[in-house]
Amino acid sequence: MAWVRSITRLSRSSSIWKPANRFTSTISADPGLAGFSSSGSAFHAGLGPTSPGLDKPRLVVLGTGWAGCRLMKSVDAGLYDIVCVSPRNHMVFTPLLASTCVGTLEFRSVAEPIGRIQPAISTAPGSYFFLARCTAIDPDAHTVHCESVTDQGGVRDAMEPWKFKVSYDKLVIAAGAEASTFGINGVEEHAIFLREVHHAQEIRRKLLLNLMLSDVPGISEDEKKRLLHCVVIGGGPTGVEFSGELSDFIIKDVHERYSHVKDFIHVTLIEANEILSSFDVRLRQYATKQLTKSGVRLVRGVVKDVQPEKVILNDGTEVPYGLLVWSTGVGPSPFIKSLYFPKSPGGRIGVDDWLRIPSVQDVFAIGDCSGFLESTGKPTLPALAQVAERQGKYLSNLVNQIGKAGGGYRNAAANLELGDPFVYRHLGSMATVGRYKALVDLRQSKEDKGLFLTGFITASKMKNPRPLASFLTNHGRSVTRKSKM
Amino acid sequence: MAWVRSITRLSRSSSIWKPANRFTSTISADPGLAGFSSSGSAFHAGLGPTSPGLDKPRLVVLGTGWAGCRLMKSVDAGLYDIVCVSPRNHMVFTPLLASTCVGTLEFRSVAEPIGRIQPAISTAPGSYFFLARCTAIDPDAHTVHCESVTDQGGVRDAMEPWKFKVSYDKLVIAAGAEASTFGINGVEEHAIFLREVHHAQEIRRKLLLNLMLSDVPGISEDEKKRLLHCVVIGGGPTGVEFSGELSDFIIKDVHERYSHVKDFIHVTLIEANEILSSFDVRLRQYATKQLTKSGVRLVRGVVKDVQPEKVILNDGTEVPYGLLVWSTGVGPSPFIKSLYFPKSPGGRIGVDDWLRIPSVQDVFAIGDCSGFLESTGKPTLPALAQVAERQGKYLSNLVNQIGKAGGGYRNAAANLELGDPFVYRHLGSMATVGRYKALVDLRQSKEDKGLFLTGFITASKMKNPRPLASFLTNHGRSVTRKSKM
Repeated sequence: MAWVRSITRLSRSSSIWKPANRFTSTISADPGLAGFSSSGSAFHAGLGPTSPGLDKPRLVVLGTGWAGCRLMKSVDAGLYDIVCVSPRNHMVFTPLLASTCVGTLEFRSVAEPIGRIQPAISTAPGSYFFLARCTAIDPDAHTVHCESVTDQGGVRDAMEPWKFKVSYDKLVIAAGAEASTFGINGVEEHAIFLREVHHAQEIRRKLLLNLMLSDVPGISEDEKKRLLHCVVIGGGPTGVEFSGELSDFIIKDVHERYSHVKDFIHVTLIEANEILSSFDVRLRQYATKQLTKSGVRLVRGVVKDVQPEKVILNDGTEVPYGLLVWSTGVGPSPFIKSLYFPKSPGGRIGVDDWLRIPSVQDVFAIGDCSGFLESTGKPTLPALAQVAERQGKYLSNLVNQIGKAGGGYRNAAANLELGDPFVYRHLGSMATVGRYKALVDLRQSKEDKGLFLTGFITASKMKNPRPLASFLTNHGRSVTRKSKM
Repeated sequence: MAWVRSITRLSRSSSIWKPANRFTSTISADPGLAGFSSSGSAFHAGLGPTSPGLDKPRLVVLGTGWAGCRLMKSVDAGLYDIVCVSPRNHMVFTPLLASTCVGTLEFRSVAEPIGRIQPAISTAPGSYFFLARCTAIDPDAHTVHCESVTDQGGVRDAMEPWKFKVSYDKLVIAAGAEASTFGINGVEEHAIFLREVHHAQEIRRKLLLNLMLSDVPGISEDEKKRLLHCVVIGGGPTGVEFSGELSDFIIKDVHERYSHVKDFIHVTLIEANEILSSFDVRLRQYATKQLTKSGVRLVRGVVKDVQPEKVILNDGTEVPYGLLVWSTGVGPSPFIKSLYFPKSPGGRIGVDDWLRIPSVQDVFAIGDCSGFLESTGKPTLPALAQVAERQGKYLSNLVNQIGKAGGGYRNAAANLELGDPFVYRHLGSMATVGRYKALVDLRQSKEDKGLFLTGFITASKMKNPRPLASFLTNHGRSVTRKSKM
């Protein structure tokens, strides 16, 4: 049975399976395979089915966000070979991403390589990280179809992508959601999202470039004002935190280092409804006061059109900008939409109480791409890191338990007792609003009464202030306003 | 005389000088002004002449390399307004750049913002940094012509560049040289230089991308070998240090973190003559031995053509590569070539014993863009950081001395006594060859006899080993082989 092992080293033994050589590729795209399809004809290169007794069962994870990484961290690498397929080889600590845009934190501090989260992926012979996107899932054949990602970071001479297949015993879809543009023209082209490290890098580059350009002679005053107008669309935690970080940056760094242009730079936060709408009303008022005090202009408005140098609102107002950051929430990605699995309200993949996709064997979905099926009677959970992290942790326990009970291989877990279903308990929400001030809302849901806090850390005593991290560790003196409603 | 001050705030008082508004630009490119030309007709926007008694004299510095930054660091900001024109707002500590490509050092550790080197540039009302390129010098009108640089770092929606002029009382040309391609086809398109932080970032991105791609199923063994073949052209200190860093990275990080592909990655260093030809013969032999021992293949060859995935040598050999780094030395840039000043042998701007351009008033040239005129009887100095740094330091003293003696304004220093001329004394050369090993050559010139060293630092005791920095500070136990010839 030596050939069974050889599939994990396919490129060395091309006599058995034909590798998808990009020069002489004979492999077509299988366009009909966006959802269920068992066209198990000529195999692509890839990892074939595992063989009980010779291989460990293979757990395939799609995605390296909060859900997927938390899962992989705790999956027992003695029970499973872990194969991760993702266009990103690291996890991003998204709540701190806003701080990297202005240099409060270094980019490296908010990204963790997947090989450090789960060392087996770098070292175990049957565990891999594949820099690729999943393009289709074939649940009958227990196979995912993938395409390599070859053009990251604007690298020159990038290769053509190629296709391959990976067989799974257990599959976890943790592919996340994508930023919503609401179909508004120009968003993709001109606005920058704030979801990945390269977004934060682009924001930083553009901010610094605009600061420098606005000081070069020959620029008109209007143009200078436009260049230095930072507009943030969306008043959720990300938008509010980024606005706060920006105003901190202006008050401190711009006044020190770009003092020639300090009177020209401004931040405007545009939100259709109220900022931080999921937070308690008093926290919203506190945030509004703090942001306004630190110079952020809050504008109620709906964006109609985005042009290269200005945003047009529904009421016709034109807002010129030099930097435009878009953080209006997330929705299902085209990949998630393309899957023929039953969906939860909102278009996410529908899961049962144990985060399984009930219509097929051995497939789970967690994080922003998934939601409870209506039949469970549970509400769709918000697209929060907290939810994804908790689901990843729960599912790692579940797959470990299944593996220990001998249900790791394909179709072997159908009759196992799965234990307690997943229950989400909200531990509270938090957002920073700049200048070392933050909000914490500890209510279970928007409708509940409960404990919430606002507070600040004394900045003067901190050499390297890191707003959120400091607040979390309660470093320094902290004054809180508590209220039991 | 209020209008004299207003020129430094031109964009606010467009009644006097017309700003080059990019929407309604009426300014032509003055193509005839590549060298000397006094077409002092309609002024562009910019900084006009200073007025003794109202303004400080203005020192304009072109460039932010070793020479320009060392100069600006020590120029007395009480004597001069300092205006720096450069396409880069920071200085790069080039000898450590190779270490950033593989993560030994962080990019931020090798770059220093100009505003921190000379704080007056960020804060003093008449001192500026302009993100721009100098396009022409008009020594009769004491004016430089500049064009803004608006497209750094692949920023989207970059503005169109615009032109402006800056009047100077003293001008220092420290615009550096550029990497030589020797006219070889394909170098610019496919090879990466190693002179700027963004080069190091591109190398790191490509190296990591290739490591990840080589592990994706469906790639042939030949293609995997190509992807993981790192080829370095040029065996000077930069090429040798980068090869050493790469082999360290392979021996340590790749074996740990990319263990699936560790047997496929290789480094080849191609040099037409001998590696480190400016070093003593015994040091060369030591370097050759160390590099070979750590797995670097040394190839004697001359590159004829560079194609997207392979290098063709003069003898017809084809060398496939996944990463190609080009470090074969530097030559005059098109800007330096375009200047009509007398040149030194090698095409650099010719200077006298005091680093002045003798044919005109108030203009100096330092660093890789300058060389002694043949009339001085001194040899052209090598294009080394050490030379540039020493020239910057010397010239800062000289301009301070001129300023104190009342010669700061234009045409005011003609009859001043300048004191000692610039004399270069070589303090020795150093290169690291990876694995905490380095060479130090303390001879005054290639022909001299003298002291040289090789040595290593015990790595096991260092938590965050930084080869060169550690060697410089003599941190840890060091064994040296000394030889008095």
